[in-house]
Amino acid sequence: MVKRGDRLPVYYHDYLQLDRLLDAQAPESAKTGDEAHDELLFIIVHQAYELWFKQILHELDEVHAIFSQESVPERSMGRVVGHLERVVAIQRILLDQVDVLETMTPLDFLDFRDLLVPASGFQSVQFRLIENLLGLEHDRRMKINEADYTSRFTDSHRALLEASHERPSLFELVDAWLQRTPFLHFGDFEFWKTYREAVDRMLARDRALIESNPNLTVEGRSEQIAHFDAAAGGFDALFDASAYEEVRAAGERRLGHEAFLAALLINLYRDEPILQLPFRVLQALMNVDEGFTTWRYRHSIMVLRMIGSKIGTGGTSGHDYLRKTATRHRVWTDLFDLATFFIPRSELPALPPSVVGAMRFHMSVGDV
Amino acid sequence: MVKRGDRLPVYYHDYLQLDRLLDAQAPESAKTGDEAHDELLFIIVHQAYELWFKQILHELDEVHAIFSQESVPERSMGRVVGHLERVVAIQRILLDQVDVLETMTPLDFLDFRDLLVPASGFQSVQFRLIENLLGLEHDRRMKINEADYTSRFTDSHRALLEASHERPSLFELVDAWLQRTPFLHFGDFEFWKTYREAVDRMLARDRALIESNPNLTVEGRSEQIAHFDAAAGGFDALFDASAYEEVRAAGERRLGHEAFLAALLINLYRDEPILQLPFRVLQALMNVDEGFTTWRYRHSIMVLRMIGSKIGTGGTSGHDYLRKTATRHRVWTDLFDLATFFIPRSELPALPPSVVGAMRFHMSVGDV
Amino acid sequence: MVKRGDRLPVYYHDYLQLDRLLDAQAPESAKTGDEAHDELLFIIVHQAYELWFKQILHELDEVHAIFSQESVPERSMGRVVGHLERVVAIQRILLDQVDVLETMTPLDFLDFRDLLVPASGFQSVQFRLIENLLGLEHDRRMKINEADYTSRFTDSHRALLEASHERPSLFELVDAWLQRTPFLHFGDFEFWKTYREAVDRMLARDRALIESNPNLTVEGRSEQIAHFDAAAGGFDALFDASAYEEVRAAGERRLGHEAFLAALLINLYRDEPILQLPFRVLQALMNVDEGFTTWRYRHSIMVLRMIGSKIGTGGTSGHDYLRKTATRHRVWTDLFDLATFFIPRSELPALPPSVVGAMRFHMSVGDV
Amino acid sequence: MVKRGDRLPVYYHDYLQLDRLLDAQAPESAKTGDEAHDELLFIIVHQAYELWFKQILHELDEVHAIFSQESVPERSMGRVVGHLERVVAIQRILLDQVDVLETMTPLDFLDFRDLLVPASGFQSVQFRLIENLLGLEHDRRMKINEADYTSRFTDSHRALLEASHERPSLFELVDAWLQRTPFLHFGDFEFWKTYREAVDRMLARDRALIESNPNLTVEGRSEQIAHFDAAAGGFDALFDASAYEEVRAAGERRLGHEAFLAALLINLYRDEPILQLPFRVLQALMNVDEGFTTWRYRHSIMVLRMIGSKIGTGGTSGHDYLRKTATRHRVWTDLFDLATFFIPRSELPALPPSVVGAMRFHMSVGDV
Repeated sequence: MVKRGDRLPVYYHDYLQLDRLLDAQAPESAKTGDEAHDELLFIIVHQAYELWFKQILHELDEVHAIFSQESVPERSMGRVVGHLERVVAIQRILLDQVDVLETMTPLDFLDFRDLLVPASGFQSVQFRLIENLLGLEHDRRMKINEADYTSRFTDSHRALLEASHERPSLFELVDAWLQRTPFLHFGDFEFWKTYREAVDRMLARDRALIESNPNLTVEGRSEQIAHFDAAAGGFDALFDASAYEEVRAAGERRLGHEAFLAALLINLYRDEPILQLPFRVLQALMNVDEGFTTWRYRHSIMVLRMIGSKIGTGGTSGHDYLRKTATRHRVWTDLFDLATFFIPRSELPALPPSVVGAMRFHMSVGDV
Repeated sequence: MVKRGDRLPVYYHDYLQLDRLLDAQAPESAKTGDEAHDELLFIIVHQAYELWFKQILHELDEVHAIFSQESVPERSMGRVVGHLERVVAIQRILLDQVDVLETMTPLDFLDFRDLLVPASGFQSVQFRLIENLLGLEHDRRMKINEADYTSRFTDSHRALLEASHERPSLFELVDAWLQRTPFLHFGDFEFWKTYREAVDRMLARDRALIESNPNLTVEGRSEQIAHFDAAAGGFDALFDASAYEEVRAAGERRLGHEAFLAALLINLYRDEPILQLPFRVLQALMNVDEGFTTWRYRHSIMVLRMIGSKIGTGGTSGHDYLRKTATRHRVWTDLFDLATFFIPRSELPALPPSVVGAMRFHMSVGDV
Repeated sequence: MVKRGDRLPVYYHDYLQLDRLLDAQAPESAKTGDEAHDELLFIIVHQAYELWFKQILHELDEVHAIFSQESVPERSMGRVVGHLERVVAIQRILLDQVDVLETMTPLDFLDFRDLLVPASGFQSVQFRLIENLLGLEHDRRMKINEADYTSRFTDSHRALLEASHERPSLFELVDAWLQRTPFLHFGDFEFWKTYREAVDRMLARDRALIESNPNLTVEGRSEQIAHFDAAAGGFDALFDASAYEEVRAAGERRLGHEAFLAALLINLYRDEPILQLPFRVLQALMNVDEGFTTWRYRHSIMVLRMIGSKIGTGGTSGHDYLRKTATRHRVWTDLFDLATFFIPRSELPALPPSVVGAMRFHMSVGDV
Repeated sequence: MVKRGDRLPVYYHDYLQLDRLLDAQAPESAKTGDEAHDELLFIIVHQAYELWFKQILHELDEVHAIFSQESVPERSMGRVVGHLERVVAIQRILLDQVDVLETMTPLDFLDFRDLLVPASGFQSVQFRLIENLLGLEHDRRMKINEADYTSRFTDSHRALLEASHERPSLFELVDAWLQRTPFLHFGDFEFWKTYREAVDRMLARDRALIESNPNLTVEGRSEQIAHFDAAAGGFDALFDASAYEEVRAAGERRLGHEAFLAALLINLYRDEPILQLPFRVLQALMNVDEGFTTWRYRHSIMVLRMIGSKIGTGGTSGHDYLRKTATRHRVWTDLFDLATFFIPRSELPALPPSVVGAMRFHMSVGDV
């Protein structure tokens, strides 16, 4: 270990290890004696992706460490939001990199594409680790030509991926954190009973909306009513633990029942001081999910444009695979679904003063 | 008409008609005496969309006018590219606006959502006109609750939309322009015969790739071979006019045979001076298509986030509808598919010097 | 007032008042009988700017209302951050609109530019109101050809602008809010004395850095030492109220002394739960400031590109004016300068447990 | 050299050399035993910058090679535009990366900042090479503490930079290319005489505008007239070679006289087929220049925010240096100034039919 006082002057180039970094691009086409101009771009775009994936893992690992504690300190909440918002800022770069890669036309790609077989972006270990860390379940993943996704990796990489399945995911940790929240039980105040009554009033009104919608045909109305009844059934499952478990067993819900209710409550009463940061944590988790969803979709269109309906270098139809994962590999679908169960603020039960009082600071900060 | 010399001084505020513009936001919630803060955002985002749609129509109309001429002058090509690239620049704003709208949370939306029924973004006349102008076919459009999309408009708007179906779309005009191109026939040089030979060599190599891919299981290989055979069949249809027509009749191809070949040739020989601008036109058309595809998809995720699985104000499941249109309402799928038929430049037949000579300028501009 | 139950069906087109909105573009060139294609773009870009300015005013007005209260409730902090972050999201659109406007070339602009004289973007009432609301001081504003900025407006607009000078700006309200903060005095704990000692240690080390920097020439070192002494003098002014007032009187500082110290403390101890949201408020204010600074600068380059060194339609050198305002019209320079007074966390005085205890929630939420 | 047939299967991870790439981040703070979380971000942002700088050099080198030919083939023009537009797409990422770096707060930076002394972003060899390649003149560069910019590099890097000064810059090559253009002399047609007459008409009108502007005070009018006279003087220098050389000797113009005129003509008659691509080349050069200008400015604000008025790790006031370079290190100021000399299209002299004829293709492509 080096003491701060004993250090040598630092040189930008060495600090960033640029000799290694800028010497790590070896186009396959150059080895054939006929370098394709755009292969460097192809390499650098993917290297930049991997650098950013490393950074994203660094941020998510920190969030993971915070949520791994038995009791998550309030003072860490701000940092959790900061880490996740940084991931969102990085995702904007990931998206813009698709634009840069699209400046390479399919014909340019063909100059070196066959030299890359059977390599494929599927084989990004770090991206798979990010997905696993976020909480993508192993059996939810798309197969690749009917094989498990790990089949395309070397033994050591496969071991890394398998180890990542053993570790609790961020999803599981946040699930547990939500379950532990003390916000669900307020002494004598039966929050959920009051909420259910408000919901029932809203449902009655929504059904009336459908029944009186002049734009609907008879068939359209029946269809909408069926859709509505399904929605009302959703509320039943929301309030009843065993019904909820059925929905969850069917794979339509993933958070535990109390965690789901806690997330709902945090959203509905986000203005209470103690809920402001938890609300931002949930928002940030959704933003991260949406960022990857968008990126996968854009990626799928880019592949379509690049190879048409050709077979990808990795041996699959790249476009279809990617387009399907865009929707299927989402992790925080439950948070997106929360909106299904919101009711207008004007109809929200007011929290009793004792509860509200417990949710604020008690420094003499009335005027902060 | 006002002579340039007789004009009154112009005042910024009046020039932009800001009295009207800034007085055109009337939140429904304000009418109930309890204005929801975010309804203004909701209105302004949609108004900004409509302003940009007007601008996009203005650009596309100009492109339409250029391609409507019996003979499209070379000197207009640069402007065509300029108009389309402007649309692409605007699409970036359209996407940013989704981010802005997402700063409104579902709970904020609920403060005024029920006041908007049965209005819906489906009812943007201008967006429908854009889609029709680009070339989205009437029978390809998603139905809305089994009704034709025009059913949701007032009579006068419906008439506008129906009129737009009568007008040749940009797709049809570009199709005709490509068909008229003189690049397909080079005197004695049998381009397509030479190209077909090159393709056959490439196909043989690609099949070998699949057969020797160590990552494939037996089943995977069969599947890939089947996929490959389909691809090879695609080439058959490419070179044979009647086979092509069958594919087209099946709805898998839309451009005419000669137009498709012309687009292919423009891509393959894009460096020839006379093809440089036409190549950029085709690129720009694809960029416009991709921009709307991405926007529709982002829009669909935003709706999911905003209303969960609730019924949209327009009476449908907004998210599903939008997500499906993202893929289905694409117009230039043929141009994306072109990549399927590219072969590496190293194997491209060289054009005879007489052809190359005809494709360049003849000013003494060797050194331009 | 309309009861929610008695409402008529809403139609998208009418709700957005599109008949008015889309009829509010009247190119001057069209009046001469020779419409310039790009004038519509010019109008629509500026109209979109004005729509967004209205929205920004709407958000800032809400923040203003919150900070206008004698005691700012904790429960409003989350919303303050939300409003400001929305402004930042809108600023991204403002920037992208510059890209769109730049698709109009100078030659295209010349087709209608002389028809606009003497109108000018200076005359955006709303943008001036935004600047005034944020806290740009009247006498800090750039003059326009030696005249007060209000001279370019109609009487009614001038009255609006003058009225806005009478209202306390957001800067002043936040200044007062920071001054009222209870965080500066912690009973017996003499925070600032402890902090000053830590600072003195850091300053000694920084001076050593300069003295031993091998890259400096003799002259360079003297210059740096002078620069350093100025910085050290800055710390003197930080801790001494009357010295601070001198700096402030010289126009180099604007926040009150206690407000500046409060902002410093919020930054340094931002992880304490009670400071997490105030920290985000300060960050968001800086982001808003930076957004407008960047936009003004980009705007100035765009003008340079559009008219070169010609005289602007408003009668000034547009580029120079805008470039100078980019830096000069910044409001939150104090918050940017805070970094000057930070010391590494490793050397920050620890807050006493009693203080830390007062800064957290007291619900049994250890495990939230 | 490896034959295409004899190749081993390629593995994504090895192809991208990820073992080296992802092992090249060695935070200095980690060496002290107390790793600062954000130092990895700091390293990765800068490494990503350097990867993109490598790519930008790759693109500019290709453009350089094309313009280094004695006679630049028309068929390369499309590719020149493509390379430059790719640089512009990359610059968008460079800008986004500033946003990501700004998620690191000054306090986070302080955790490791003193460990980096005296390293500095000034020391990016590649960025200096980019500037030199584009054409930033050695004596135009900002000094760093009165020393030449090369003084901050190791001997081998200094040698690289000095070698780059010996090589003709892209500016010089484009200058020469423009000078060689045949578009300036059209046989008997005295273009510039006709143009001058048109200009004189426009100048007379512009002076009238100023004289009749009701918004100007007496002093304002005098100032404007002086400004105007300077502009008119600019036109004199435009048409007179020796006057032009004086302006150039004074450092206010850099392109050769004929090159400047050629650039002007390309802009004015950009619709002629032969000028469409050259016009796009000039536009793209301006976009690249503007991209770096904007990035430097954003960078300067970011530094201000990060260190306030502290001394940078490299021993200078980072913010001031960067802000000044934003304007001063621009290369293509001449192209931005061109707009000064444009006149409205309605007053542009028509080119004689023989000239127009020489500027188009002569294939039977009337209907392309």
